[in-house]
Amino acid sequence: MTGSEPARVAAPGEGITEHELQLAARNHGLPAEALRYDLTPVGLHYLLIHYDIPDLDRSTWRLRIGGAVQRPLELRLDDLRRRHRVTSVVTLECAGNGRARLVPRPISQPWLLDAVGTAAWTGTPLAPLLAEAGIRPGAVEVAFTGADHGVERGVEQDYARALPLAEALDSGVLLAYEMNGMPLPPQHGWPLRLVVPGWYGMAQVKWLTSITVLDEPFTGFQNAVAYRLKQDPGPAGTHDTGPAGRHDTDDPGEPVTRIQPRALMIPPGYPDFMSRTRFVRLGEQIVQGRAWSGWAPVDRVEVSTDGGATWVAAVLGPALGRYAWRSWGYRWSPAGPGEYELLTRASDEAGNCQPGEQPWNRQGMANNMVQRIRVVVTG
Amino acid sequence: MTGSEPARVAAPGEGITEHELQLAARNHGLPAEALRYDLTPVGLHYLLIHYDIPDLDRSTWRLRIGGAVQRPLELRLDDLRRRHRVTSVVTLECAGNGRARLVPRPISQPWLLDAVGTAAWTGTPLAPLLAEAGIRPGAVEVAFTGADHGVERGVEQDYARALPLAEALDSGVLLAYEMNGMPLPPQHGWPLRLVVPGWYGMAQVKWLTSITVLDEPFTGFQNAVAYRLKQDPGPAGTHDTGPAGRHDTDDPGEPVTRIQPRALMIPPGYPDFMSRTRFVRLGEQIVQGRAWSGWAPVDRVEVSTDGGATWVAAVLGPALGRYAWRSWGYRWSPAGPGEYELLTRASDEAGNCQPGEQPWNRQGMANNMVQRIRVVVTG
Repeated sequence: MTGSEPARVAAPGEGITEHELQLAARNHGLPAEALRYDLTPVGLHYLLIHYDIPDLDRSTWRLRIGGAVQRPLELRLDDLRRRHRVTSVVTLECAGNGRARLVPRPISQPWLLDAVGTAAWTGTPLAPLLAEAGIRPGAVEVAFTGADHGVERGVEQDYARALPLAEALDSGVLLAYEMNGMPLPPQHGWPLRLVVPGWYGMAQVKWLTSITVLDEPFTGFQNAVAYRLKQDPGPAGTHDTGPAGRHDTDDPGEPVTRIQPRALMIPPGYPDFMSRTRFVRLGEQIVQGRAWSGWAPVDRVEVSTDGGATWVAAVLGPALGRYAWRSWGYRWSPAGPGEYELLTRASDEAGNCQPGEQPWNRQGMANNMVQRIRVVVTG
Repeated sequence: MTGSEPARVAAPGEGITEHELQLAARNHGLPAEALRYDLTPVGLHYLLIHYDIPDLDRSTWRLRIGGAVQRPLELRLDDLRRRHRVTSVVTLECAGNGRARLVPRPISQPWLLDAVGTAAWTGTPLAPLLAEAGIRPGAVEVAFTGADHGVERGVEQDYARALPLAEALDSGVLLAYEMNGMPLPPQHGWPLRLVVPGWYGMAQVKWLTSITVLDEPFTGFQNAVAYRLKQDPGPAGTHDTGPAGRHDTDDPGEPVTRIQPRALMIPPGYPDFMSRTRFVRLGEQIVQGRAWSGWAPVDRVEVSTDGGATWVAAVLGPALGRYAWRSWGYRWSPAGPGEYELLTRASDEAGNCQPGEQPWNRQGMANNMVQRIRVVVTG
């Protein structure tokens, strides 16, 4: 399709392209100093929007629940607001976080490490609504469709993602209409979005318009093609397009699901505008940050101040919720003026951890490479 | 200074660098479809933060007014909130908007065309406060200092900008504590920022802590070095650093002040995720957008649907305020399926307009190049 392109990875040494820059200018990460807030203020939470923010009208908007159910439902926002109301503090992260640091770099939204945020999401649980609709025997998945419409690698679509039935029935899954105590902002899915605690952002369908119970696995683009862990970079020669990089491959890959553990630090000191190098004055520093995992509670955060040669455990603060980030802190006394490289890494109770060497995948999904921050200690 | 770099422009063909990407990931533009909102919702308004968002404490924060005044003042936020309260709808734009499309590209925050937003700013006028402090004879400028601290081209500083005295005394200048009816978000300057209607963003000092009346022109970095219209790209050989681009020059340049006219359109149809190419189905399209100028009211917006060969006047809607953007609309009936390039341009009552060919300047400041959008009309 004219104007739409296959996926590719960058050629060696290829700078960020204009298409990547267009995405980076629209979407944005969490400025790392904003890790200081327990709840990320609106406007600082990361944002990834595949197509356009849709222009919806409260008076005509409806949520339709259908497919393999006994009693299809059609609900207004007020109907949903009158139902049981729950608030959950949940950390969301984009599955492509860190993509721009992979080598070779998959060409897509060029995230560094800041595609994360934590909010108090208020809404009504999904499971009782599905029970009310009556799931028919044989149902296997539930698809969620948003009002955002566009084209991706030649496929025209409304953004849609499915969850396995058991995950959709998890008591934590919310149909959310408020963020941090206010109606959802347009860019976070007004009037209604899905919140699936522990899962990467692609599952958190915004501008929700329909929920469809399926008796066959969903074959939509975002499940079958986009959010997959593909290992095959494509055989050289066949899929290579020369200096412009390599095309997509036929590797179906594994589905992207829950959030891998990650720790991020609030960069100490103050920055240089352009390089973002950090400067601190000699003396004890309190290095602080946040850590999270979608698989199990974070049980360990470590810090290295020597480029990763040695690691020391940080002190963990309380978690803000089962699927919310946990604060941590570490007292660092630099030996003297000079340059240091600070790193941090997290692990969880299920034994997941951040790898020393990041395994590569074709679309840069679900990586959890370690954050490295260059700090200049001045005398 | 280690970790800080001189300014430079990109070498021919040099892609967006990692340092530019770091800035693009932190800061963000207005997603173009958000031009549909009269007031830009928080989180969609453009954001440029030189250093870090400071971590301020309401109980200890004070605004100090001093320098060449009879009676220095020290004010709490509540003191300011008790004063005369004014709300103004003001469009703000970054002086570097469009920089990434200049050739050669100045290396800095790599804006495409979306560094703009409009908000209702509520605060108290500055002029009566300066009168209360008593400006001493001989005063020429007023400097405004924020709490944001960092390094830029080797110069450590709190962000500070000065205005000529007459501009500071303009009745439109506000000390703002609310945005769109809510307390300022942290990223927009909480608890207090300056709003200078009609001026580019560099004048709108955030996280304001002091106002200093000066009897000599201000020599701070942001006035004397950063926000200047410099023409000299540097003599080849002397300032060249080879393939990595050219270094800063000694050209002092002219100061950047008010916003040049610009029109932007809401991209019609729906996008491709990666290329942002737009698709529309054959049939009449209502092309809409916004236009603004900091010099005088916008009096004309034109649209071209043939790549700039011919132009037709758009219908102007009401302005939301003297220094707020004005809506416009144009009915477009594509002749048939195929590719089109849509452009729009504005002019103001003072005779300023958007140039056909964009004059280049060394730091990519105050350019107002015409927006071009590629649209594929499908049958």
